[in-house]
Amino acid sequence: MNAEPPKPARRSDALDQAMSPHRRVVISAITPSVDEGRHAVKRCKGDLLAVEADIFTDGHEAIGAELWVRGPARRGWTRITMHALGNDRWRAEIGLDEEGPWQFRIAAWLDIFGGFVRDTGKKRDAGLSLALESEEGRLLIEKAAEDASGLTKKGLEKIIEGLTVLSPADRVALLLAPETGRAMHAADHRPFLAESYVQDVDVERIRAGFANWYELFPRSQGKDGQHGTFRDVITGLPRIRAMGFNVLYLTPIHPIGATNRKGRNNALKAEPRDPGSSYAIGDASGGHDAIHPELGALEDFRALVTAARNHGMELALDIAVQMSPDHPWLKEHPGWFVRRPDGSMKYAENPPKKYEDIVTPDFYADGALWTALRDIFLYWIGQDVRIFRVDNPHTKPIPFWQWLIADIRARHPDVIFLAEAFTRPKRMYQLAKIGFNESYTYFTWRHSKGEFIDYMRELTSHPVSDFFRPHFFTNTPDINPPFLQTGGRAAFLIRAALAATLSGLWGIYSGFELCEAEPLPGREEYKDSEKYELKQRNFSQPGNIIAEIAQLNRIRAQEPALHSHLGITFYNAFNDNILYYGKTAPGRADRLLIAVNLDPHHAQGCDFEIPLWEWGLPDHESLAVEDLLHGHKFTWTGKVQHMHLTQEVPYAIWRIRPPGSGAP
Amino acid sequence: MNAEPPKPARRSDALDQAMSPHRRVVISAITPSVDEGRHAVKRCKGDLLAVEADIFTDGHEAIGAELWVRGPARRGWTRITMHALGNDRWRAEIGLDEEGPWQFRIAAWLDIFGGFVRDTGKKRDAGLSLALESEEGRLLIEKAAEDASGLTKKGLEKIIEGLTVLSPADRVALLLAPETGRAMHAADHRPFLAESYVQDVDVERIRAGFANWYELFPRSQGKDGQHGTFRDVITGLPRIRAMGFNVLYLTPIHPIGATNRKGRNNALKAEPRDPGSSYAIGDASGGHDAIHPELGALEDFRALVTAARNHGMELALDIAVQMSPDHPWLKEHPGWFVRRPDGSMKYAENPPKKYEDIVTPDFYADGALWTALRDIFLYWIGQDVRIFRVDNPHTKPIPFWQWLIADIRARHPDVIFLAEAFTRPKRMYQLAKIGFNESYTYFTWRHSKGEFIDYMRELTSHPVSDFFRPHFFTNTPDINPPFLQTGGRAAFLIRAALAATLSGLWGIYSGFELCEAEPLPGREEYKDSEKYELKQRNFSQPGNIIAEIAQLNRIRAQEPALHSHLGITFYNAFNDNILYYGKTAPGRADRLLIAVNLDPHHAQGCDFEIPLWEWGLPDHESLAVEDLLHGHKFTWTGKVQHMHLTQEVPYAIWRIRPPGSGAP
Repeated sequence: MNAEPPKPARRSDALDQAMSPHRRVVISAITPSVDEGRHAVKRCKGDLLAVEADIFTDGHEAIGAELWVRGPARRGWTRITMHALGNDRWRAEIGLDEEGPWQFRIAAWLDIFGGFVRDTGKKRDAGLSLALESEEGRLLIEKAAEDASGLTKKGLEKIIEGLTVLSPADRVALLLAPETGRAMHAADHRPFLAESYVQDVDVERIRAGFANWYELFPRSQGKDGQHGTFRDVITGLPRIRAMGFNVLYLTPIHPIGATNRKGRNNALKAEPRDPGSSYAIGDASGGHDAIHPELGALEDFRALVTAARNHGMELALDIAVQMSPDHPWLKEHPGWFVRRPDGSMKYAENPPKKYEDIVTPDFYADGALWTALRDIFLYWIGQDVRIFRVDNPHTKPIPFWQWLIADIRARHPDVIFLAEAFTRPKRMYQLAKIGFNESYTYFTWRHSKGEFIDYMRELTSHPVSDFFRPHFFTNTPDINPPFLQTGGRAAFLIRAALAATLSGLWGIYSGFELCEAEPLPGREEYKDSEKYELKQRNFSQPGNIIAEIAQLNRIRAQEPALHSHLGITFYNAFNDNILYYGKTAPGRADRLLIAVNLDPHHAQGCDFEIPLWEWGLPDHESLAVEDLLHGHKFTWTGKVQHMHLTQEVPYAIWRIRPPGSGAP
Repeated sequence: MNAEPPKPARRSDALDQAMSPHRRVVISAITPSVDEGRHAVKRCKGDLLAVEADIFTDGHEAIGAELWVRGPARRGWTRITMHALGNDRWRAEIGLDEEGPWQFRIAAWLDIFGGFVRDTGKKRDAGLSLALESEEGRLLIEKAAEDASGLTKKGLEKIIEGLTVLSPADRVALLLAPETGRAMHAADHRPFLAESYVQDVDVERIRAGFANWYELFPRSQGKDGQHGTFRDVITGLPRIRAMGFNVLYLTPIHPIGATNRKGRNNALKAEPRDPGSSYAIGDASGGHDAIHPELGALEDFRALVTAARNHGMELALDIAVQMSPDHPWLKEHPGWFVRRPDGSMKYAENPPKKYEDIVTPDFYADGALWTALRDIFLYWIGQDVRIFRVDNPHTKPIPFWQWLIADIRARHPDVIFLAEAFTRPKRMYQLAKIGFNESYTYFTWRHSKGEFIDYMRELTSHPVSDFFRPHFFTNTPDINPPFLQTGGRAAFLIRAALAATLSGLWGIYSGFELCEAEPLPGREEYKDSEKYELKQRNFSQPGNIIAEIAQLNRIRAQEPALHSHLGITFYNAFNDNILYYGKTAPGRADRLLIAVNLDPHHAQGCDFEIPLWEWGLPDHESLAVEDLLHGHKFTWTGKVQHMHLTQEVPYAIWRIRPPGSGAP
């Protein structure tokens, strides 16, 4: 093997290209990666980035490989040596200690001297004569010294001096010495260097991956039938914070149109005092950058932002890109909206259904619409809002969101976008790929043990786990799941426990803690939906599950294994009604074992296996256990144990540690 | 929705790019595809190419999608309408009726009129008033007519005429009529057109995917200890053809070096009469384009090519890019070879082992080496050879093979390259990706039921199945598997049945049919290896499995399900020693059920399931069966049956058909 860069003869373009030295080493199957670098990998601050790739070449030469990483400050690339795992797989790791856009790429080359050391060592061990090898080694070092400078050159020259005076055996020892290898590594001109594509990594703040959301309608927070205000929301903050929620998500706070306003229970015609849907945005007083006058003024909103922050909570605003017929933009920018042949507005529709209280703009009519919508987000960012729940993003062009999110996060890397993309899986995933930090999911429609195992496997598999952060809401103003309608209080406990332990992000819509579930008959919707009327609740009514939710959120705060949907393993529990899984956090020896009775109508029990085998323990071994719900500590002896889950406490959360890692 | 191409306002480059209409429709997850079009998909002539992709956009607009395909003649693209399968997956198919390089891509756009027809139909079914919709439809057709010409324009104008005179109901009927849709489809200017990358498809001749190989050393085909000749090989052709082999693979036929020649059993020093390794190529009389003088002259070789063809067989030559120290190139092109500090040749080595009878060239010294090696292949192609078995391709640069195979197959698309890449999996696969038409595999090292199931699943999964065509050799001059060494005649029957029914490509090395397996003690190699000496055999010696091999090849010829490794399903046979699988051919109702006793030392029996469920049949149903080994026809009643496989006949091959598709 000649270590020189090739000097191809002039033959043909195809031959010249084929002979490019950069094509000889193959770098492929890089993880994490999304569509070969076309989209960013998502991580949170503090995560470990573990990069792996298949790296190989022809023949017997040794390979050198580095992970090049740079953080948001773009102060040049940090180079980290990659290590071979076997089967041509290589790996390196780096801690992501700063929020913002990171990048990595992989470089690999032929490590000629490394191969020389490896082969000469084998020959020495076999007792072969090494006179020629010593000379070859010396020539390699001389050549490297020629091309080197400064301290590197001096180091190599010193080795060459040594080689000229030493005995043959000592000469070989010096050639194979680690310090000689390091000196040659420093001088290596890296023949046949290949470089991978650059993979972006969005490193977000921890709340993008781990948060407890509470959704409410601000206008319902008043008393005695009065329209609620931001000040009323402030009054309710301690109640919400006491349950352990740290993101307070407000449905739209803007003026509501009067034209074609919807009445109670989605009636086509509103009664005079009906408040209309918060999603029919805009009237003569303003649009998406205005506040509904009955909620208060901008100072009140800012007071709410501050009060929430003082309670350790953060506001999330709901942005719905749709306009009531009274939205100011319809007059100011008629070109942004489509009209029908008779001059009437083209309302949103899902034939044969029509939504006559809203219109959606024509995104390809004028780029000024895109910047105007971007500026709405910037306006609320100016009011210290950093989390946006985006309504129905899949009904607007995907490239619009890709541009908007990139534009905003370049200015404000701490902004979080949640996609309410209740749509088909490929669109849901595409919105995550192009930038949405988190997404609503199909959680509310998953019920059986098999469904949960399949869904969690999908969400935690590569590459989905690299771009899609699932948010498990138990319910929303639009979704009153039949399971809750028919399952009573146990059903609410079950869904809370599942959401809070399966996902790093979970949330409830106000009323869930009171086990509200009265439906429109035969529908997955709430009767007297809060979307069309004020709804004032008594939050101390009996039968609520406030204490249980607070306990779940306390356990979530304490247990790193619950800060993400990753690190999950499903284990054997011999009852189809009991879902049983382990959760681990990176770098932690302990793990949680969680069991949930999926049947809200009956207590369920079963034998189950504790995963002794994962620590190489025999089936009769004992483990110390802590029951996180009741605080008991005890010991399990033997692989198979028994559990019993009642309707009153339909779930269990245990913490175990491997023997020798300290009591739990 | 405005169907016009967008006219973006001048804002920023990022906004302009985002607003590009070509980004709105997403085309992704295309199958078949290899590394997103960087490498070709492999198919054989006569195969159906079934292309699928995820295609979607935002909102509710309808999508139109086409597969564009062009064959080797490059006479423009054939457009085939794709059909939605549900869940945003689309599909189209085309028969590959010509050998050579094909290409396909996918185009998708918003089908505005298609969406109008769909939505208007729903509104009509819901009894809504459609006056405005009729007018909108008419405007769409007028706009299309404006931009159209010729017959398309005339057709649209005729529809517009109809719309002006018809009653409202008839107007709607005309708008929704299929012929109106077809006229609009013809005129569609395809707004928001997106196009996928181009995927190459190598369509090869059938023998690239379905062939029975027989390997021999021509020099062993003589009599009475004489060096064999090509004429002797001609004499042996009927014997080989009678076993059903149709590719006759010859080990290297070139002059053999004398310097450092290896003796019997790989002895470092040859005795005077030792013939040397056929892989130590070249002496003063010539190199890779010369013939060993004792084998005959070029006319004799050409006579062999012709005689083989007359027997329905084809020759495969073995090309090993390595030179004996006496190869003419060492003198003619000293720059192509590396010398050590003392001026000696740098021999091939795998430290601490050295191969002092061969040197390998330095591929990056001079591009003239690449063209000289290419010209060797062209030389033998000139002698009517079209199949090359390439020795150890993984020890030469991968880009070299990529260039060479592309260069040669552009001139001769009927040439087949088989990679003898016994190396780690990722290198083996990469060589297939970059062009090798078929590859040796790990078949000889797979023994247990679980190993076969895992390996076949890997080989038949996407994308491996799209680029890697496995060749299952039972043995080679280098590989004398322990299973054969210790398993006796039953072991040979087992491995022949496995290779012949699991893979479209299988082969044996001469002596297998005689159950030859005497090893070098403790090694996976043959004693008195034919690589280093002549080996003349008595092919009528008792205990041979010639009749069984001939029967397997007869069944292979008759059964399309055995023409590929694809179309395999593993079924339940309740004995770990019995591998039991079904094989189907595309478009065929019948299927083969195959069972192999993996234990050469004992008869094995078990209950097994016949896959009634695949045809929706109840467990008690009956099926007509044909035993292809014995020609019996009978009936199985009930899902669970029993089999018994002896050492004498350790496999079974049954053909079944679904009821109603005719007797088997």
